[in-house]
Amino acid sequence: MTLIILKIGGSVITEKGSISRAREAEIERISHEIAAFRSDSDSHLILVHGAGSFGHPQALKYRLSEGFDAEGAYLTHASVNVLNSKVVEALNNAGAHALPVHPLSSCLLENGMLIDFQLGQIKVMLERGIIPVLHGDVVMDRTKGASVLSGDRIIPYLALSLNASKIGAGSDVDGVLDEKETVIRKITPFGFMDMKKNIKGSGSPDVTGGMLGKVSELLELAGKGVSSRIFNASRKGMVSRFLYGEDVGTLIADK
Amino acid sequence: MTLIILKIGGSVITEKGSISRAREAEIERISHEIAAFRSDSDSHLILVHGAGSFGHPQALKYRLSEGFDAEGAYLTHASVNVLNSKVVEALNNAGAHALPVHPLSSCLLENGMLIDFQLGQIKVMLERGIIPVLHGDVVMDRTKGASVLSGDRIIPYLALSLNASKIGAGSDVDGVLDEKETVIRKITPFGFMDMKKNIKGSGSPDVTGGMLGKVSELLELAGKGVSSRIFNASRKGMVSRFLYGEDVGTLIADK
Repeated sequence: MTLIILKIGGSVITEKGSISRAREAEIERISHEIAAFRSDSDSHLILVHGAGSFGHPQALKYRLSEGFDAEGAYLTHASVNVLNSKVVEALNNAGAHALPVHPLSSCLLENGMLIDFQLGQIKVMLERGIIPVLHGDVVMDRTKGASVLSGDRIIPYLALSLNASKIGAGSDVDGVLDEKETVIRKITPFGFMDMKKNIKGSGSPDVTGGMLGKVSELLELAGKGVSSRIFNASRKGMVSRFLYGEDVGTLIADK
Repeated sequence: MTLIILKIGGSVITEKGSISRAREAEIERISHEIAAFRSDSDSHLILVHGAGSFGHPQALKYRLSEGFDAEGAYLTHASVNVLNSKVVEALNNAGAHALPVHPLSSCLLENGMLIDFQLGQIKVMLERGIIPVLHGDVVMDRTKGASVLSGDRIIPYLALSLNASKIGAGSDVDGVLDEKETVIRKITPFGFMDMKKNIKGSGSPDVTGGMLGKVSELLELAGKGVSSRIFNASRKGMVSRFLYGEDVGTLIADK
């Protein structure tokens, strides 16, 4: 059985520059694309979504990247929990079975590194045809108290532990862009060192690293045999095209 | 450092016989009793709340005790998640730091038995002065797909794994009652066999076992050295009195 891990960026499903405002129509559209694929395929699917304007403003305000703050941790998690409930509800309304898995409840960090992640419940969900829906979250950290764990950093752990066959990172740009705003069709570890300086960064404030961080994480994964695609999930039909295996966005592969 | 585990029954914080209606004033009152104790004591505290009218009606409707139902699992969890958010918010508003830990995200069952429970994040929360707030929930089950895990069944696992010194089960009755409606002051394993037939059961429909089930679970715990009290959390000040160590309700102890 193949496992697909799909990430949907916070910039796709929330309003940038606002506080805790969701793009409900986009969440519904993407949920329908996923549900249609599910009814047509028996691939296992995990969805990981970003926090966007649910969580990032709170994490910045309470400076969660600098030190422990119990109130900030609560407000950040509470906000992203609202977004997660919207996503899970939209998937179920669209006819896909989905259940939330909150990193705050299931993960443990040590100095920012993911050292423990309960996966047994995710495996049973997959066996039963349920889409586990994870998200960027505040997570307890043995050294720091609590840290932000981005959706992008959850994916490599899940992909390697559960032997994923395909990763898709749905962003609000058409892929990884060069300095001329052209989509780079393919990135490999070999070409990355030269290419790095020409890659366009993510403009919005993001406590979790932007496009270069995403590419680095996915290249490391490619080196371990799991290739991925960065594509534009804000364009209608693109999530569907990725799920059906079409050549969309930027391919990140070992060779 | 002592650890207190406090259970607040679903009957205390939700309206019986309704669907998903919370007793907001009761949640606020209890949150203030907890927050006042917290500001006064450095004991670690875990709160576990029942689902009451958030979850039980859905679990009954979709017959979750009889077999797997993905839609029922989603609706049951979504409902209890709403209640949990209210409880965690009320605690933080009252000045106590609290974070949710959802059993669906952190536990795994096998044929109804709790076989895996991620506790690392709970330990860090306790060290940082945060109250982890758990609840009765739908949990994935390796054999059955999904099962209901009551708050009462979470407590023995937590108490033994984390070496709790005191358990309180706050219900909507004054303690364990005999056939004359008098509170039984103390129950031990030795007296329980004779006493059993005289214990008044729980009247409301409850997929999780009622008063006899509660007493049996807590007696097993007493046999392992952790005593507990069943008391009336619906009476003002009783949660506070229990936390401060007063002799309230029914004591369940080994001798």
